[in-house]
Amino acid sequence: MIDIVRLDENNKSYYVENLKNRAEAVQRDVIISVENILDDVRQNGDIALIKYTNKFDSENINSQNVKVTVDEIKKAYEVVDKKFIDAIKLAKENIWFYHEKQKQKAWMTTKEDGIILGQQVRALESVGIYVPGGTAAYPSSVLMNTIPAKVAGVRKVVMVTPPSEDGSINPNILVAADIAKVDEIYKAGGAQAVAALAYGTESIPKVDKIVGPGNIYVAMAKRSVYGFVDIDMIAGPSEILVIADKTGDAKYIAADLMSQAEHDILASSILVTTSQELAKKVKEELEKQVQCLERKDIILSSLKNYGGIIVVDNIKEAIEMANIIAPEHLEVMVDEPFLLLGEIKNAGSIFLGKYSPEPLGDYIAGPNHVLPTSGSAKFFSPLSVDDYIKKSSFIYYSQQGLAKVKDEVVTIAETEGLTAHANSIKVRFQ
Amino acid sequence: MIDIVRLDENNKSYYVENLKNRAEAVQRDVIISVENILDDVRQNGDIALIKYTNKFDSENINSQNVKVTVDEIKKAYEVVDKKFIDAIKLAKENIWFYHEKQKQKAWMTTKEDGIILGQQVRALESVGIYVPGGTAAYPSSVLMNTIPAKVAGVRKVVMVTPPSEDGSINPNILVAADIAKVDEIYKAGGAQAVAALAYGTESIPKVDKIVGPGNIYVAMAKRSVYGFVDIDMIAGPSEILVIADKTGDAKYIAADLMSQAEHDILASSILVTTSQELAKKVKEELEKQVQCLERKDIILSSLKNYGGIIVVDNIKEAIEMANIIAPEHLEVMVDEPFLLLGEIKNAGSIFLGKYSPEPLGDYIAGPNHVLPTSGSAKFFSPLSVDDYIKKSSFIYYSQQGLAKVKDEVVTIAETEGLTAHANSIKVRFQ
Repeated sequence: MIDIVRLDENNKSYYVENLKNRAEAVQRDVIISVENILDDVRQNGDIALIKYTNKFDSENINSQNVKVTVDEIKKAYEVVDKKFIDAIKLAKENIWFYHEKQKQKAWMTTKEDGIILGQQVRALESVGIYVPGGTAAYPSSVLMNTIPAKVAGVRKVVMVTPPSEDGSINPNILVAADIAKVDEIYKAGGAQAVAALAYGTESIPKVDKIVGPGNIYVAMAKRSVYGFVDIDMIAGPSEILVIADKTGDAKYIAADLMSQAEHDILASSILVTTSQELAKKVKEELEKQVQCLERKDIILSSLKNYGGIIVVDNIKEAIEMANIIAPEHLEVMVDEPFLLLGEIKNAGSIFLGKYSPEPLGDYIAGPNHVLPTSGSAKFFSPLSVDDYIKKSSFIYYSQQGLAKVKDEVVTIAETEGLTAHANSIKVRFQ
Repeated sequence: MIDIVRLDENNKSYYVENLKNRAEAVQRDVIISVENILDDVRQNGDIALIKYTNKFDSENINSQNVKVTVDEIKKAYEVVDKKFIDAIKLAKENIWFYHEKQKQKAWMTTKEDGIILGQQVRALESVGIYVPGGTAAYPSSVLMNTIPAKVAGVRKVVMVTPPSEDGSINPNILVAADIAKVDEIYKAGGAQAVAALAYGTESIPKVDKIVGPGNIYVAMAKRSVYGFVDIDMIAGPSEILVIADKTGDAKYIAADLMSQAEHDILASSILVTTSQELAKKVKEELEKQVQCLERKDIILSSLKNYGGIIVVDNIKEAIEMANIIAPEHLEVMVDEPFLLLGEIKNAGSIFLGKYSPEPLGDYIAGPNHVLPTSGSAKFFSPLSVDDYIKKSSFIYYSQQGLAKVKDEVVTIAETEGLTAHANSIKVRFQ
């Protein structure tokens, strides 16, 4: 199911490439079909939105019932497990606590001659959250996408999610949305829902930014409306990398690798260890534990194609491997995990020590579980309050302040051939 | 050339729509042609890169001379104006000063049971800066795109810019790049240069993020590689909004409106004032000053199509107008400009008072001149140090800490049908 290999110069880049290659090549016909849906909804609003919803999701949706009612939410509370509600409430509290620390402050600074420079920080006015339907409907994702927006101060959070064939929405999703304080929920999915959020229709309000995962149509639609509205990063298949020395616990490591592998057959789970013995034990544990797991087939498939147990000579090599792969999740199961924090450059979220398994971070710990995948931790960050704010700079110059730099402004303006720029300085000193 | 109108319910949305509509509709054939160039460079590296460079820019470029040499930079210093070099050095100093204040710090926090949560901040490893060629080659943009990267700590800043027909690069650009400490410069432009930065070729290194303005091919190529690498926001046509009360100086305001209008025929320059008298004087000043300006034709065209002088009843209405338009540049020329700062929600950069003209911000004041356009100040921020860093969260839980929340993690995991997630918690307490 999974091989143990010793890292060498020949296989070093294999893992990086293998992970990158999981991303689907986007077909031209998908691009064209998404562009057509976007154009249609932009021009025809609700008529187009409802047409595609009826075609792809449910024939029971019309512009009268596309918005989820208070009554539907009330009914959802009646059918979901009480323990689940309490767990979601605890998750909300912890996620709120962590994201509060991310809030940024406006600042200003003064210079000679009374010059004042600064930067304002403002929440976006409205945000749209895409929540996939079917088996990929995760209540925890509703919390993770909504709470940082609310912490930032976003006044209107609008959720869209494709309805089931009968026109209903998963009650767990509705309850999570309500606890996270989503303001409006609409039964729409696919490129048509993205279009509605980007351009607005009679039913669905236009928002400033669209976030949340989705299939290739949703991802392409988001990419296409980028600039007209803002979007979050584009999520790819999930991955975990575990770094362990001989103190690592094989049972825990195997369980954590499989918790990632169960997501889908493209998920990647890799252990990099300095201990050949631990490598062997983890392999045994994987073979043993997988037998009792519901999603055994998915786990075996993703371990086979994108899993790996890599033995390295020392921890430095393991860290280097992590920095090259830039995993979404990085577990550090070594004797003194904090001592390695300074060396880790590229990772979405870092889990330190034996009792910080990745699923803890998915649900309850507080940091966001929306993380950069497929090596994009080299340039993307976890979803955060930063994603729901925007900044403005401000400049105040006094007459003396401007007088001192006027020649330099004029020189650069004239070099660039922008003589009206130069004129705007000159008129002030005539 | 420009009309004075009184704001009412009928024309309120006209200006917003008119500005938004400046964005070119992207033709399907541009999309396809860009995708083909991207694929070609990705697969064939330098061969494709040089082929397109020879075709679109200069026949004199090959893989041996595509990289700008130290000697070429030395020669550039010999031909550029000494005053220009000094002005660029002052600009660099001020831009550096402002962006230093944007640096963010890592943080950590502890909770009961020894739980530690935190967030790391790291500079991107490498960044690519696109600099347009021809008449749109602005040395100031080289500074504005490069300096925040250097302040953030980016180790490798790679610049690409299309060569002239003879294979040379504008010496002002080379000098600005050298002063801004760009690490490598390549003679390449268009979608092929974006592809080279995204995928790497034999000559041009792959980077983590691509920034900088460009034509529609460059913009489409950036949009297409987004996710594989990071990109900055997509820049549209430029705009200024001036808010003035009766204390505004008509001569200054007219000059500032035209400094924006000269950029291109799609640029927009709008005055919103509470004073009918000022409105008239500004119109007169525009007519007078424009006669002496080199780019008179562009200015007249953009003022005619996208300019406006709008009279409103009170300052509150003027601010509301600004917040709806969300201008790239907002000048506030009122009696006590700072008192309005709290009301301004949407603007890229805010210029306060009589002696803070927009061109000061373009070159010397320090804040970035790469700003959100076409109303995107509602969700985008000025280019900043934030654009060149990324964050990682970290989580440490003790055994007691995990024990307290284990049931909630298991509950959510099982509700989501992710039983291997639940297993990873359970194995730790067996």
